[in-house]
Amino acid sequence: MDVDALAAARAALTTGSPLVHCLTNTVVQTLTANVLLAVGAAPAMVEAPEEAGDFAAIASALLVNVGTVHGRSAEAMRVAVRSAAAAGTPWVLDPVAVGGLRFRTDLAVELAGSGPAVVRGNASEVMALAGAGSGGRGVDSTATADDALEAAVALSGRTGGVVAVSGPVDVVTDGARVVRVGGGHPLLTRTTGAGCALGALVAAYVSVAGDRLTGTVAAHAHVALAAEAAAAVCSGPGTFAAAWVDALDAVTPGDLLRADVRDES
Amino acid sequence: MDVDALAAARAALTTGSPLVHCLTNTVVQTLTANVLLAVGAAPAMVEAPEEAGDFAAIASALLVNVGTVHGRSAEAMRVAVRSAAAAGTPWVLDPVAVGGLRFRTDLAVELAGSGPAVVRGNASEVMALAGAGSGGRGVDSTATADDALEAAVALSGRTGGVVAVSGPVDVVTDGARVVRVGGGHPLLTRTTGAGCALGALVAAYVSVAGDRLTGTVAAHAHVALAAEAAAAVCSGPGTFAAAWVDALDAVTPGDLLRADVRDES
Amino acid sequence: MDVDALAAARAALTTGSPLVHCLTNTVVQTLTANVLLAVGAAPAMVEAPEEAGDFAAIASALLVNVGTVHGRSAEAMRVAVRSAAAAGTPWVLDPVAVGGLRFRTDLAVELAGSGPAVVRGNASEVMALAGAGSGGRGVDSTATADDALEAAVALSGRTGGVVAVSGPVDVVTDGARVVRVGGGHPLLTRTTGAGCALGALVAAYVSVAGDRLTGTVAAHAHVALAAEAAAAVCSGPGTFAAAWVDALDAVTPGDLLRADVRDES
Repeated sequence: MDVDALAAARAALTTGSPLVHCLTNTVVQTLTANVLLAVGAAPAMVEAPEEAGDFAAIASALLVNVGTVHGRSAEAMRVAVRSAAAAGTPWVLDPVAVGGLRFRTDLAVELAGSGPAVVRGNASEVMALAGAGSGGRGVDSTATADDALEAAVALSGRTGGVVAVSGPVDVVTDGARVVRVGGGHPLLTRTTGAGCALGALVAAYVSVAGDRLTGTVAAHAHVALAAEAAAAVCSGPGTFAAAWVDALDAVTPGDLLRADVRDES
Repeated sequence: MDVDALAAARAALTTGSPLVHCLTNTVVQTLTANVLLAVGAAPAMVEAPEEAGDFAAIASALLVNVGTVHGRSAEAMRVAVRSAAAAGTPWVLDPVAVGGLRFRTDLAVELAGSGPAVVRGNASEVMALAGAGSGGRGVDSTATADDALEAAVALSGRTGGVVAVSGPVDVVTDGARVVRVGGGHPLLTRTTGAGCALGALVAAYVSVAGDRLTGTVAAHAHVALAAEAAAAVCSGPGTFAAAWVDALDAVTPGDLLRADVRDES
Repeated sequence: MDVDALAAARAALTTGSPLVHCLTNTVVQTLTANVLLAVGAAPAMVEAPEEAGDFAAIASALLVNVGTVHGRSAEAMRVAVRSAAAAGTPWVLDPVAVGGLRFRTDLAVELAGSGPAVVRGNASEVMALAGAGSGGRGVDSTATADDALEAAVALSGRTGGVVAVSGPVDVVTDGARVVRVGGGHPLLTRTTGAGCALGALVAAYVSVAGDRLTGTVAAHAHVALAAEAAAAVCSGPGTFAAAWVDALDAVTPGDLLRADVRDES
């Protein structure tokens, strides 16, 4: 991994201030917007099917997160993804809770066919999305990110993009290379929306980085560094979120040079 | 009240990590999720009518809060409640602002007929729900929890479950016994979603406690203890919420032994 | 500007505790509610088209913010505005991102014809709303509040109400008088929902102030003073929001006497 490219991507976030169109679940919208603002990007949640297509075409990147999806928001996602694909806008798919629930699983499989630049989820979600597409592989909710590596590579082969699996050590692959990102802190898993906000940060980074793998790894490393800093100053799971946003703001390009990024390709 | 049972319920939250399906208003989703995560439970907001039934059947408990209800979310609530009732999943009804507003009042009356394990609201809401069902008793927005005791007992008789009335001193009844929970702090009333998050905590506790009354009282005592601790360290109504979540995490089984719980049955 | 009237409006917020009906975007609901609670007002998000009309008629004030508007919420806005207009309830229009997006722009132009007491937006939004109504003036996203002064005066002439343009120095006009409010802090622009919550605060103030211009200026001055105090104690963009809510609570009537308010009429 070219760590200088990670640092350059961090710098480009601030100078480029990418506009990230977020079609995400209502539980995490506030944190997602604040995370994007903290790192220098600009969030916008434009959710009407009548507007989502026009906006996705002019945005720097699009995030589609199916956490609280329903009929109308699914339609907005379809419109936005179609528009992003046509315009060349990179877009990120976060398949929240895909697996056991039919409506969102069918939707995620359908959307994954439109070339997401990145799919980001936990091991179970990535395994479910990979398995659903090829006919029914089971889901293990206690899976580690590495358990999902094979599924991630297969899914990457199908989407033509990067697949990132979150866990104590994150696994990021473009099908050929595999990069692991360590660090971070367990308080991320006790803060609603931390993973979802990471998905938005991936979208922001991918729109400014030289390549998708670099952008995805930079986003994960940025989150991990900030989580460590926040855990050191917060007083518990309640005060962690705001401290994490403070820390996301404070992560410099130079900080990314010392992130725990292991490229074993 | 068996205070050892309260302590045991607190311990069971951490070991059981119940999955709480929350169909709640969009203003309070983030705090609700973070409160559940803080105490050791797992939140999930699955809101599409196409999915809400399947999810309620596998969840440990269901919360239905009508704060920002509309046509589609009302349908999801009906589907989820039907499924919870069939599966034996305990569910909690929070009748936010029921009384003057017809759409939600009709819905809450209808849902209350499907056997909520607990109804939790303020005095006005409980009196309105009790009155609406029996033909039109007025609502007093300045009512105390004890003013609603008669209505709570009557409502409990109709639902077959527990009814909890929030106030400076909370009143909890299963129709036969009446338990009062004191303590807490006025900053709870200046934090949007604190009462709604309590409803979710009641759902989590009821799913792990030996009985519904114990679970409901434990949730109220847990919230009150944490509010006192948070008020002592925060700097105002803005910093209270995160401090409260920190404090909810820190409440131990032993702390519940010294909660202000008065069983005058 | 009568600064004593600003101080009196601050005092009236606490004594009057106005009920503010908020039809606002889902990203900012939590902060909006907490801001209203902090200053002594009471928030309520009643969003079903079946209920929004009845509620707007009994509320002290109504906020309509089109940030995440879609078909059903647009219908609720129409119903609520019609009801507010009929009942004489003052209402505030926040035309978020109006300009390039057709659905919300058409809606905002339509609603602006029903006599909003105040329109509050940034320069681009106010210019777009003024231009859209008179046939297509362009939008400059880098515009300052003063760049929008002419558009604000024209829009005020059309609505018959106050128009407020947010920026480093806010510009507030009722068509005849022009008042500028300085102070504040750039961290407001890095906190999602700060401007939207200001819109809700304007609604609250207008319902208790002697006149609309005074109420609107008082809300802007209140926000600016609190932002300065919060910036002095927070640790970054993440911890700013809660500190700001603490500070909003702490602003006294006397504090408003020393706000940076310049009436050059």
